[in-house]
Amino acid sequence: MAQLQIGVVGGGVAGLSAAFRLAKHNHQVTVFDPDPANGASHAAAGMLAPASEANFSEIPLLRLMQHSNELWTDFAAEIEAVSGMPVGLRREGTIVIGFEPNDARDLERLSEFQRELGIEVIRLTRHQLKELEPETGGPFPYAAMIDSDVQLDNRKLMDSLLAALDSLGTRFVRQSVSAVNERGDGGYEIVLDDGAKVQPDAVLVAPGSYVGTISGLPKAVTRSIRPVKGQIIRVQASPELLRHVIRAKVYGKTLYMVPRSDGEIVIGATQEEVGFDTTAKVRPIAEMLSQAALLLPGIGEADFIEHMVRFRPGSFDNSPIVGRYEDSNLFLCLGHFRHGILLSAALSKYVAMAIETGKQPLEIEQFSATRLEAS
Amino acid sequence: MAQLQIGVVGGGVAGLSAAFRLAKHNHQVTVFDPDPANGASHAAAGMLAPASEANFSEIPLLRLMQHSNELWTDFAAEIEAVSGMPVGLRREGTIVIGFEPNDARDLERLSEFQRELGIEVIRLTRHQLKELEPETGGPFPYAAMIDSDVQLDNRKLMDSLLAALDSLGTRFVRQSVSAVNERGDGGYEIVLDDGAKVQPDAVLVAPGSYVGTISGLPKAVTRSIRPVKGQIIRVQASPELLRHVIRAKVYGKTLYMVPRSDGEIVIGATQEEVGFDTTAKVRPIAEMLSQAALLLPGIGEADFIEHMVRFRPGSFDNSPIVGRYEDSNLFLCLGHFRHGILLSAALSKYVAMAIETGKQPLEIEQFSATRLEAS
Repeated sequence: MAQLQIGVVGGGVAGLSAAFRLAKHNHQVTVFDPDPANGASHAAAGMLAPASEANFSEIPLLRLMQHSNELWTDFAAEIEAVSGMPVGLRREGTIVIGFEPNDARDLERLSEFQRELGIEVIRLTRHQLKELEPETGGPFPYAAMIDSDVQLDNRKLMDSLLAALDSLGTRFVRQSVSAVNERGDGGYEIVLDDGAKVQPDAVLVAPGSYVGTISGLPKAVTRSIRPVKGQIIRVQASPELLRHVIRAKVYGKTLYMVPRSDGEIVIGATQEEVGFDTTAKVRPIAEMLSQAALLLPGIGEADFIEHMVRFRPGSFDNSPIVGRYEDSNLFLCLGHFRHGILLSAALSKYVAMAIETGKQPLEIEQFSATRLEAS
Repeated sequence: MAQLQIGVVGGGVAGLSAAFRLAKHNHQVTVFDPDPANGASHAAAGMLAPASEANFSEIPLLRLMQHSNELWTDFAAEIEAVSGMPVGLRREGTIVIGFEPNDARDLERLSEFQRELGIEVIRLTRHQLKELEPETGGPFPYAAMIDSDVQLDNRKLMDSLLAALDSLGTRFVRQSVSAVNERGDGGYEIVLDDGAKVQPDAVLVAPGSYVGTISGLPKAVTRSIRPVKGQIIRVQASPELLRHVIRAKVYGKTLYMVPRSDGEIVIGATQEEVGFDTTAKVRPIAEMLSQAALLLPGIGEADFIEHMVRFRPGSFDNSPIVGRYEDSNLFLCLGHFRHGILLSAALSKYVAMAIETGKQPLEIEQFSATRLEAS
């Protein structure tokens, strides 16, 4: 295969995972990001949880998420083999809890839908839940296990990807990209903040929420993505406090708690606020903490480490936008929304194929940039 | 009056306010602190609230607090006149709220005790509370106004004190004091981390909770103080959200909210944990935020700025230890506990008098170091 020079705009999980696939195929990859691995990928919880997300997604996206979840086993091993650094993939499964009767009813309805899709959802008795997670409160009217929903440690993943890319000779340019401009010949070039221009064979645009800050890109591309605020809280507990990912409905709101191997727990919610307001609000922090304590009373004695706000790239139809833009040398890997970590095993694979072949792989036909014209 | 060389160990509100009084009397003052104005005084709420604290304190301490509250008007003006920087003294009074019937009963009992002490506590109707603070929730079973309990902005105060001392020529040595040692002649000298020795005419020891880290001091002094953890949360709201200090009982716990002129609100509680554990725990943060939202629902939309842990110097009998140590050149200004800002107007005045006259002023006879022998 011909060796290509590829410029990747954006050093989040979308850009770095694609860079890794391309660098492993011996292409010359350069990543442009003023602060790689410190955006939404840094604040993620790292859940690989297509089943739990089934209620939020259209069927084709759900199938892509399930497929990507399966790809993660090999992809994680590939990254770890190059970097020598673990990505913290854990396959304990996810425990789903409904806090009060209305939450239980919602989750029962969801589990019917999940079973129709072939997802195994195993109801847990009070005794079984206590066996799996002795520190949970309750009793809760609903508890279930979804074995297929697992997790990795997003921060370890990003560190591992950075190290792997380093050892593959990928170059990092720690500058903002001010523009991706069309040249006279129809090809696109990268313009850096300091005015320098770079003209790789292919430009992969994967800057997450920040695509709107890059000038020169087709309007249809930049207007397709909106930043959707997400906040997480990290606390430090003892490793015995929580062993499985818990995903709960508490008074109609979704809360998740993701344990790391060292006793850290990432607490998040699926609440959504559109816009680039970087402040953390009092209400969601208070709600997350008090809901977490309802599920896992011992978390009250955990140490509060940090709260963090980042921006998830939501597309106009909540599905990713991936592949070649028209017949140009511009490729897109955008709109991963709340599924950036999960989707990257698959999207990195297929966007790399698109760059190498110039064609949209069948697996991501549904998510191509051609639908932007119609938007 | 003879000009003295005075070494002040500790750059919190206790040390700096005494340094200010002494420097204004033309003594040569040097303050020793690796990081002045960044301990408990930085995390304080700045309430000058002797009446609200009446339930926690013995009568003599309460009288000292009331006296110091009165002194603050002139003392604030004096500091501001030298520094040209406001200390943010606000005299709107404090609103006391009882959240549920048991809280109301507790506060009614407290108000009887306060009235016996001559403190005016004015009950507020629902309508009056809403006039004063339109954004409060409720209705609450108890609301009252205590005009005499006011506030200043502790961070502005510390900045103003630093600037005032600077313009008075006070020297700052930004190093830790490793020891305050007795010399052969019975006098005490200051030993810095780098080994340098300083031998002023008088040594004023005012390092707050950290007195236990200084060697050489009499054991009776160092063992008299324990660090008592306090945490506060700062949020940013619009200035209309809150106008008065609110001090509330919510399900038996005391919560306070102190508005600053720019819309910042300091939220704190009177919970106490002994020891130098610098981590913030999940439960008190969650409780403070959710209780604050019960009293002032709009605070949910405020921005979360920071949470902070510092250590209040609690003495063995919860009263300050102030004055000359035996017949030496060692003077103490210790154990301000939860009242450091409030007490400093009085204690700085009387400890300065003690240094200048060598005698314990009558006003602080009760708080002298002689009671250490008996402890």
